[in-house]
Amino acid sequence: MFIIGERINGMFKDVAKAIKEKDKSVIQDLALKQISCGANALDVNVGPASANPKEAMEWLVKTIKEVTDISLAIDTTKQDVMELGLSLCKSKPIINSVNANEEKMKTLFGLAKKYNASIIGLTMDKSGIPKDSEGRMELAMKMVASCVECGIDMADLYLDAVILPVNVAQPHAKEVLKTIRDSKLLADPSPKTVLGLSNVSQGSPAQYKSLINRVFLAMAIANGLDAAILDVTDKELMDTLITAELLVEKQLYCNSYLEAYRKK
Amino acid sequence: MFIIGERINGMFKDVAKAIKEKDKSVIQDLALKQISCGANALDVNVGPASANPKEAMEWLVKTIKEVTDISLAIDTTKQDVMELGLSLCKSKPIINSVNANEEKMKTLFGLAKKYNASIIGLTMDKSGIPKDSEGRMELAMKMVASCVECGIDMADLYLDAVILPVNVAQPHAKEVLKTIRDSKLLADPSPKTVLGLSNVSQGSPAQYKSLINRVFLAMAIANGLDAAILDVTDKELMDTLITAELLVEKQLYCNSYLEAYRKK
Repeated sequence: MFIIGERINGMFKDVAKAIKEKDKSVIQDLALKQISCGANALDVNVGPASANPKEAMEWLVKTIKEVTDISLAIDTTKQDVMELGLSLCKSKPIINSVNANEEKMKTLFGLAKKYNASIIGLTMDKSGIPKDSEGRMELAMKMVASCVECGIDMADLYLDAVILPVNVAQPHAKEVLKTIRDSKLLADPSPKTVLGLSNVSQGSPAQYKSLINRVFLAMAIANGLDAAILDVTDKELMDTLITAELLVEKQLYCNSYLEAYRKK
Repeated sequence: MFIIGERINGMFKDVAKAIKEKDKSVIQDLALKQISCGANALDVNVGPASANPKEAMEWLVKTIKEVTDISLAIDTTKQDVMELGLSLCKSKPIINSVNANEEKMKTLFGLAKKYNASIIGLTMDKSGIPKDSEGRMELAMKMVASCVECGIDMADLYLDAVILPVNVAQPHAKEVLKTIRDSKLLADPSPKTVLGLSNVSQGSPAQYKSLINRVFLAMAIANGLDAAILDVTDKELMDTLITAELLVEKQLYCNSYLEAYRKK
């Protein structure tokens, strides 16, 4: 499982404050903590309230680069912020995200080629998020076709079936699970799959969020999930991830398999 | 999810002692506790050490019947103990279990008809447990065909893909998940699926057993599992079960969905 740490996001108050006050230590601590918990990449999002998102992105990426070379997922809907972020990355970056609108794909796949970036491709377009797996698969197919056209390697495409909060959109969860499974059939070699996990419990009572996240993660791994953006500092969530991978034989069993995974 | 409580089993020391000393209260407390935790049926197994299994089964079933009318899963490999148990049941009983040997199926499907029992059918035969999903599916197909021949309703057949302990048979877990999924395609209406859940963590360190059980349960529910024999008194396991069912829309979401489920 390719794990993208979700915490460096201006949506979180501590990060928004750190960006505003240019407090490097908060960001660098979050970067190092997520890596020590098992992150393979870090999501970087300046948040919705940033007055100058380009400046904020530049500061975030440079701040993180002072302490680690890990891959960064540049998480923005603004094209100029995206290109700036990508241009500053040391290791192979990730575009988070592209949707299935023709112009969006054309532009962002161009950036992916230019900066040798991986892509998180959302199964949504101008009309929004399809209500079922069939609709999502149609958009996933568009994205795969567009990648092939642009000469982008399937190994660089992570399809994100866009999980919605279970408290307001309960029927979507099983459609997302089906999309994760069916996505594997779209091409050979197949595209990868990713989830923005925490969204599933957005708006649910605080005491249930972690439970909902970890159960949905296990269910998604049972359906072949390859990657997730998640709270890697949530120990119980990571215990679930490691155990689920064990049960589909992506980790080797030993009596101290949790410790063994964490020592790697 | 149809939940069969696993605790009235002579494999557990308290139950073995209660059978030996004819201590009704231990058994009746276990019955009522499991029901209050959400069991829809109770497994009844005299255990491997019982000197007189027929007498023990009769005492167990009668003891349980004094406090509840709930369905019982008569859990024995001995035909005479099975028939005695079935004959004593008040509510629709469950035969636990039948394997895919021709003679076994013939005899036990006969008992199922006679006592209007459901059947837990293991995907194993004289040669043992197949190493992969294909082998399990072959035996599942045999079982379905034999049921049709004997006039047994598909709704009464619970296919059990036989999960083995992950600590010694790690590759089996993903084969079992695939078998659960594929079993649904064997007939229309489809047979049901069941798991003897705790077996997956048998032999793993005590502190990991519940974690392994609950992650595997979520993964199995993601693949369409209909029923499980499990430790219904394990609260975290039940939280997982309820949440997994929520995410495949078998429970309705509300902000207090765990409490709502338990109040039902």
